[in-house]
Amino acid sequence: MYKIVLLRHGESTWNKENRFTGWTDVDLTDKGVEEARAAGDLLRDEGYAFDVAFTSVLKRANKTLNIVLEHMAALWLPVEHSWRLNERHYGALQGLNKAETAAKFGDDQVLKWRRSYDVPPPALETGDERLTPNDPRYASLPADRFPHTECLKDTVARVVPYWETVIVPRVLAGDRILIAAHGNSLRALIKYLDGVSDADIVGLNIPTAQPLVYELDANLRPIRSYYLADEDTIKAAAAAVAGQGKAKA
Amino acid sequence: MYKIVLLRHGESTWNKENRFTGWTDVDLTDKGVEEARAAGDLLRDEGYAFDVAFTSVLKRANKTLNIVLEHMAALWLPVEHSWRLNERHYGALQGLNKAETAAKFGDDQVLKWRRSYDVPPPALETGDERLTPNDPRYASLPADRFPHTECLKDTVARVVPYWETVIVPRVLAGDRILIAAHGNSLRALIKYLDGVSDADIVGLNIPTAQPLVYELDANLRPIRSYYLADEDTIKAAAAAVAGQGKAKA
Repeated sequence: MYKIVLLRHGESTWNKENRFTGWTDVDLTDKGVEEARAAGDLLRDEGYAFDVAFTSVLKRANKTLNIVLEHMAALWLPVEHSWRLNERHYGALQGLNKAETAAKFGDDQVLKWRRSYDVPPPALETGDERLTPNDPRYASLPADRFPHTECLKDTVARVVPYWETVIVPRVLAGDRILIAAHGNSLRALIKYLDGVSDADIVGLNIPTAQPLVYELDANLRPIRSYYLADEDTIKAAAAAVAGQGKAKA
Repeated sequence: MYKIVLLRHGESTWNKENRFTGWTDVDLTDKGVEEARAAGDLLRDEGYAFDVAFTSVLKRANKTLNIVLEHMAALWLPVEHSWRLNERHYGALQGLNKAETAAKFGDDQVLKWRRSYDVPPPALETGDERLTPNDPRYASLPADRFPHTECLKDTVARVVPYWETVIVPRVLAGDRILIAAHGNSLRALIKYLDGVSDADIVGLNIPTAQPLVYELDANLRPIRSYYLADEDTIKAAAAAVAGQGKAKA
């Protein structure tokens, strides 16, 4: 039996400001830092240890991971970074305040963009400064494949190959693995692992910085999955995340 | 021409307490964190960018590196960790207050242990809890080669092969490289690069968290080397480091 741990980054500045973030490289808030510390303490106290960690190329996930590793006395751990674990690209919505967007387009349209499986938000236009294919962290991504927007289906299509080709061999080799990523890149992975339907995956809310354990059988099929924190904590955290993107008064 | 940057970690808690640290995994002080931030800001402001970083498996170097990378907006950078870049192992002196040790053995003996090229301090005895060959970060080090003490010559003997086999190929491939390590592992590397004599290398004081640039020719021979900070800053920092290990009143 194998065991992996998934972790969504702590609260970011744009989570707090209720903005669509996507590939924008925003920092954690103080609360997000605290969440990451608590996650590291919880993993340490529960006796978890890892052989390798995988994360995106976005600061909020990288920093969450570093804080967790520091609290586990494991800053020496090998870490692999890939854009394939990035948050879903939110296209032209990136940078917009979610409440304003919701007020303009209506809660329904925003929820559709956020949560439809195959309807992407409006794409960034060529020349938009938010397109940064020459950033060295995207050197392994051909410039003409740099996303201008993504629906969750697109995110699944770039996360799953990374899981299969990079992470699975390490799992099968017996390495204990931590994946520190984002709401939608983790949703993509969970959809694949648990065989969640297109309709159901969009309703899955993953709380920030709560270690989520997957126990996998010899064929890497989930036996069971559970959060390390107690149920009430998880329910409250998931509800808070689900409330994002609604227009505020 | 190639360019690499060497960086000694910021002040650690045991630097501050004037204790022999070696492979003991102590944290940075608040001052050490500030030093690391300043180093990251300086590298960023001077236009430096890296393709890969190398560091030890000790927290004070790892954390210094992470802080530097955060300030360079480069937390996504690939990082390779190796015990071969660890501080020199200080044997049975590890954990002892330097001033007390100096008062007991005399300034001369302490300076000899710290600065002789080939005289190691007293070795840890088998069974000493400070010997941790089963720590996973030392998995690549055969248990019977886990050091019980080291003279600087021993440190050179394990740093240089890492430079030659792991770092040099990346330099020759054109990668821009940052090495975040320790006073003596950097001394070992500098001895090798600059061909410093056994007698002279022990007098070389490397200030904490001051980026040190080496420009190398096609054969990786140094053309010139210089600190990024201004001369007065470096002189004061090096003098502070040189004062460590002397008995205090």
